[in-house]
Amino acid sequence: MRAKKPKKISDLGEVALIKRISRKIKDKNVLTEIGDDTAVIKIRDRYILLTTDTIVENDHFNLNWFSPLQVGKKSMESNVSDIASMGGMPKYALISLCLREDTPLEFIDGLYRGIYRVAKKYGFEIIGGNITHGSEISITVSMIGDVKKERLTLRSGAKVADLVCVTGDIGKSSAGLSLLIKKKKGYVKPHLEPKARLKESQIISRFANAMIDVSDGLASEVRHICDMSKKGAVIFKEKIPISGHTKEAGKILRKDPTDFALYGGEDFELVFTISEKNLKKLKKQFKNFSVVGKILPKSKGIHLLEKGKKLKLGSGYDHFKSNIKEYYK
Amino acid sequence: MRAKKPKKISDLGEVALIKRISRKIKDKNVLTEIGDDTAVIKIRDRYILLTTDTIVENDHFNLNWFSPLQVGKKSMESNVSDIASMGGMPKYALISLCLREDTPLEFIDGLYRGIYRVAKKYGFEIIGGNITHGSEISITVSMIGDVKKERLTLRSGAKVADLVCVTGDIGKSSAGLSLLIKKKKGYVKPHLEPKARLKESQIISRFANAMIDVSDGLASEVRHICDMSKKGAVIFKEKIPISGHTKEAGKILRKDPTDFALYGGEDFELVFTISEKNLKKLKKQFKNFSVVGKILPKSKGIHLLEKGKKLKLGSGYDHFKSNIKEYYK
Repeated sequence: MRAKKPKKISDLGEVALIKRISRKIKDKNVLTEIGDDTAVIKIRDRYILLTTDTIVENDHFNLNWFSPLQVGKKSMESNVSDIASMGGMPKYALISLCLREDTPLEFIDGLYRGIYRVAKKYGFEIIGGNITHGSEISITVSMIGDVKKERLTLRSGAKVADLVCVTGDIGKSSAGLSLLIKKKKGYVKPHLEPKARLKESQIISRFANAMIDVSDGLASEVRHICDMSKKGAVIFKEKIPISGHTKEAGKILRKDPTDFALYGGEDFELVFTISEKNLKKLKKQFKNFSVVGKILPKSKGIHLLEKGKKLKLGSGYDHFKSNIKEYYK
Repeated sequence: MRAKKPKKISDLGEVALIKRISRKIKDKNVLTEIGDDTAVIKIRDRYILLTTDTIVENDHFNLNWFSPLQVGKKSMESNVSDIASMGGMPKYALISLCLREDTPLEFIDGLYRGIYRVAKKYGFEIIGGNITHGSEISITVSMIGDVKKERLTLRSGAKVADLVCVTGDIGKSSAGLSLLIKKKKGYVKPHLEPKARLKESQIISRFANAMIDVSDGLASEVRHICDMSKKGAVIFKEKIPISGHTKEAGKILRKDPTDFALYGGEDFELVFTISEKNLKKLKKQFKNFSVVGKILPKSKGIHLLEKGKKLKLGSGYDHFKSNIKEYYK
């Protein structure tokens, strides 16, 4: 039987869609390809980072759960996380707001309090933007940062025998979201107030070969690193760092908490690959991370192991294949 | 009677809203304030331009009138126009797309054909972006350009006795939109396929003191220049360049065609102010513009003159105070 020809974007999904619209970049000063979360361009002797991210009402946030302050903070933290994953520092942001005409001024005031609070925390500035009208609220942030040449950590830098590591613990944002959706009590703060790992990225980027932030779940991020680095990998399920709160949410929701970590998103923790030698050096300066796997040759594929048994590793969160919007309403 | 306290953003309007959310920029490398269409930052000896613009389905385009190709082109031309108004050249763009899951692939393919066609025409590259899900289609473009220090033309540069000039003819996009809304036959192409004046801006910026592009109508743009330059101005109504097509649309719709020019938007023509001396120099290299007014001291205010008679000059198009969305449905 022949596969049906895709007609709608939900037939394709996010990754195939990005491949479909990408064309080769010719400019030699652009060091990344379309598909990276952050573009890197060389201006004189400096590496400039450029990233953009949109959050949409009822898709990324909903005002029953989020305060306007939290929406503003989240819109910023997600972009800071993209800059952090390259080893860089944020410098400037532009904000393109889409608002309904009946949006209360309270929302705007709270949103911008959140935006400016995050900007102050990380030391960057809001330098412009645009406001327009639409039937749902969305916030698009474009962020400009920079990175020292020797600190730049791309997705494509993973080497065979590198260890795969992850900062903090993961699955917590997705666990919080699931609790909110199912109207269960529990620890939802990591979903409402995710935090980028900027300070940590500044240390890790001195030692890591590849890095990415967890925005669509560990499975998806490991696949991205392997794709771009042309490598395989093994992930040890029992080594994935899951907090007590996330385990608790798993119990309440009768779900394997590791699934939150593998297939949920928006933790903004960092996944990085590092040589054994550099791992020892890193440990002297920073301890809040876990080794969860190893980079293999491409021919070995990408696996999840549980007590030595091979499991299928799925994909991450896909904005066009999920039905989260239904829950959010 | 005391004024009612504003509660919703439609009570405030676009300009007051931008003032409300703006804070002073401290970084000395940022040469503009929030409220400019384009931010200017100094990186080493280069001036980098950063701008962002969102177009939303049923607000800025509607798929009964626009082909996907035209949507893609318009999303790019509007950003190129912002860069052109600073005297700069576009270099890179990021695209943040918000799509419904049932968006046909045809739309995406057409959209990106338009996007890449404009990028090729002006010689810039698409270097990244983001795709997410929402209930209405929106396209946010962030554009990065550069400008030579001596060519930078801000809104704030107008000087008393400068002549106020405008390229080409204006009101044509708004006239086209009005014809489409009222389901009348006529010349609608300037609305569906607006074009930035990039090449022209490269000549004008050598001579002009201030420049802005016409995105919300001549009245609004002249007000912006006067505000930022702390000046007044007089505009001569009969000198505003209106094409035969726009006059024709005025007849069909029983509307003063000058209103399209003053209060309509998205012509992407350039409004600039220039000394008499430089005007002569400019005329030797470029002729497709009209002198429509003069810069005055701030104390004189901003006026519209028709055959020597003072008329009230209104404001431009306001995304939050117009009811265009109702027409678009």
